[in-house]
Amino acid sequence: MHLNVDGARLLRELRELSIIGDVGKGGSRLALGEEDLAARRWLRDRMEAAGLVASIDGIGTVFGYSPGAERYLLIGSHTDTVPMGGWLDGALGVMVGLEIARAFMAAGAPGPVGIAVVSFSDEEGTIVPLLGSRLFSGTLSWDEVEQVKGHDGRSLAEIRAAAGLANTEIARLDPQRHLGFLELHIEQGPVLEAEGRAVGIVTDIVGIGRARVTFHGRADHAGTTPMDARSDAAQALFAFATAFRAFALTKGGAGCVFNLGGASIAPGAFNVVPERAELLVEYRSPSTEMLDQIAVAVGELANEAALQARATASVAPAGRERPAAMAPSMIAHLAGAAERLQLSARTMTSGAGHDAMSLAGLIPAGMLFVPSIGGRSHTPEENTAPEDIIAGLRVMAEAARSILEELATGK
Amino acid sequence: MHLNVDGARLLRELRELSIIGDVGKGGSRLALGEEDLAARRWLRDRMEAAGLVASIDGIGTVFGYSPGAERYLLIGSHTDTVPMGGWLDGALGVMVGLEIARAFMAAGAPGPVGIAVVSFSDEEGTIVPLLGSRLFSGTLSWDEVEQVKGHDGRSLAEIRAAAGLANTEIARLDPQRHLGFLELHIEQGPVLEAEGRAVGIVTDIVGIGRARVTFHGRADHAGTTPMDARSDAAQALFAFATAFRAFALTKGGAGCVFNLGGASIAPGAFNVVPERAELLVEYRSPSTEMLDQIAVAVGELANEAALQARATASVAPAGRERPAAMAPSMIAHLAGAAERLQLSARTMTSGAGHDAMSLAGLIPAGMLFVPSIGGRSHTPEENTAPEDIIAGLRVMAEAARSILEELATGK
Repeated sequence: MHLNVDGARLLRELRELSIIGDVGKGGSRLALGEEDLAARRWLRDRMEAAGLVASIDGIGTVFGYSPGAERYLLIGSHTDTVPMGGWLDGALGVMVGLEIARAFMAAGAPGPVGIAVVSFSDEEGTIVPLLGSRLFSGTLSWDEVEQVKGHDGRSLAEIRAAAGLANTEIARLDPQRHLGFLELHIEQGPVLEAEGRAVGIVTDIVGIGRARVTFHGRADHAGTTPMDARSDAAQALFAFATAFRAFALTKGGAGCVFNLGGASIAPGAFNVVPERAELLVEYRSPSTEMLDQIAVAVGELANEAALQARATASVAPAGRERPAAMAPSMIAHLAGAAERLQLSARTMTSGAGHDAMSLAGLIPAGMLFVPSIGGRSHTPEENTAPEDIIAGLRVMAEAARSILEELATGK
Repeated sequence: MHLNVDGARLLRELRELSIIGDVGKGGSRLALGEEDLAARRWLRDRMEAAGLVASIDGIGTVFGYSPGAERYLLIGSHTDTVPMGGWLDGALGVMVGLEIARAFMAAGAPGPVGIAVVSFSDEEGTIVPLLGSRLFSGTLSWDEVEQVKGHDGRSLAEIRAAAGLANTEIARLDPQRHLGFLELHIEQGPVLEAEGRAVGIVTDIVGIGRARVTFHGRADHAGTTPMDARSDAAQALFAFATAFRAFALTKGGAGCVFNLGGASIAPGAFNVVPERAELLVEYRSPSTEMLDQIAVAVGELANEAALQARATASVAPAGRERPAAMAPSMIAHLAGAAERLQLSARTMTSGAGHDAMSLAGLIPAGMLFVPSIGGRSHTPEENTAPEDIIAGLRVMAEAARSILEELATGK
């Protein structure tokens, strides 16, 4: 079977989608907001025009099933964005799915296994991160989230009702029917561009640990209190930051990255010894065991740093996401496709979360990255060269072809 | 001559003064505000009742000259407070001056050199730090400060007019007439209490350097950007804080203290590499040369730290106060007095600024500290044991006696 994907049409449709929610310099399609819903209706109409059986489920996730099949390879991502985000984060993976579904139909498919295109709701976490894919996979239940408040103070139940979705069912993954998931996404980092690779094949998506580390000292006059008589919360914070950096760099293992992204010191005056100092700590690793080890180290290093500064420490966990390994079969299909197309590829860990995380434990999931110019994302400057977009489309299509072939023969 | 100072009367008057501006838990006599002016009028009346020639000058500084003398030893401090301050910071030095002036008059003084009691305006810097003593000494001119805004938005000129002082002259130091200055103050630190000393004899008042050190990086995704591809402003800040601490502790010299009292990091999110990080840096030293060396080191260490983190640094000076050495003659008189009274004394550097700084370069100035319980000040908990207050009074009186004796014979 020969798949004839149309890169020019993909680029045209991506530009058309980018106009919905375009506010001049950047794009904003916040989950379940007016622009996001408009984009989802546009997508459903575009799916129907392509001959797919399309619907929007009770949380806003859009599905487009190729007709005549009984089982499906899901291809997609999300069409919601961060505020003032770019045109490719999410949208690329959805529109590539649609283009591949069209190509399969044009090629005379399906057999018993078809393509289903999907745009999951609220991947970006305007209300709840990975909301659509986690409700679909069942790793989150509606009961757990219906009272979560959006930034305007409304509950998710109210937001859903206002979107006209309250009486529509929320679709659920059926592993007998949904046989696998493929997601194309921009890298959102500089690695592929720096190495001159066409695509990156994701082996793991990192898990994330977050904590607020707070040090408690005593406010004293910074002129009259001898250095060794101070209980200095900021001294403890700086010592912790230095020790944590050294620990994570040397002992964090493969694929570990971290960020000390925020700090506040009170009372915050030139001449008062800091009484309270808080640091935001985030660390990511593809290894659950390593995430556990780092969490333990955060507590130990915080206490050691506090002791040095005659202060005390408290650590408040602020979120945990489990890592997800991509399926070896999907990795092999994507790698084989890149090889057959003679495109330069490398395997890599994804440092960011993606919808594929939600499905990875339940059905075989695979992810492909294309280069991000300057590594930028979540900004209007986010971009990928047209030839890289088209290379990503071709690898995804070739991988989908070989996966469907295997699924059809292996059934 | 025998001076008969009355410790019980001093404590009574200090308590009486503390009621003015008492707001329940603490005291607030903000410079040139209603309570401060009420306290200054109370002081003037108290001086007159004691037989002094008393006046309030055009900036609120209160003077009480013992009658019949031509030249004076000034003794005093200030009666304004910080918001919710304690009962002794400033007030102690003024009321001790009044008690000593009374004792000299009771003893049949004066000869040609008398006591002048003074309460300088706005030592605490509600509008301008050391305002009264710096205008008196001429180290600050009215032209430089009249447009300075108080925290309510009014200019100092407007505040002065509202206090009814616009048409009153601001007194000026005359070294032919004002032969020296003595100030008793609470230590505001824990040293005397920890060592069990009755008094501390100040040899130097530290100078202060202040800077805002800002690091500039690039906001990137903290999951997808490799550690070695980041330009992390907070990493630079933490490295600078660590390096500055090591430098100042090992090379800051005698009497050096420092404080990294505030920090802010933007955008301040768990998952965004910090783009901007600002640190408040303050350092104190009795040596002008050392203050210069530390200022140079701040710039060098900031650039080195920025380089490590692929960021850039900028250093904005945020104030400089010159150190002041106390006069050897005054140090000797205070030390001799403590010795004759068999009170445990030590010499020490003052880490806080005081009115004596303003006069030190112009006339012989001396300062004496009494212990602060727990080292506390600028809080309602500020306190000194009654016996320590009385010991301070006795050392000041004995020193004043020997100074006046020397001045009278040496004329």
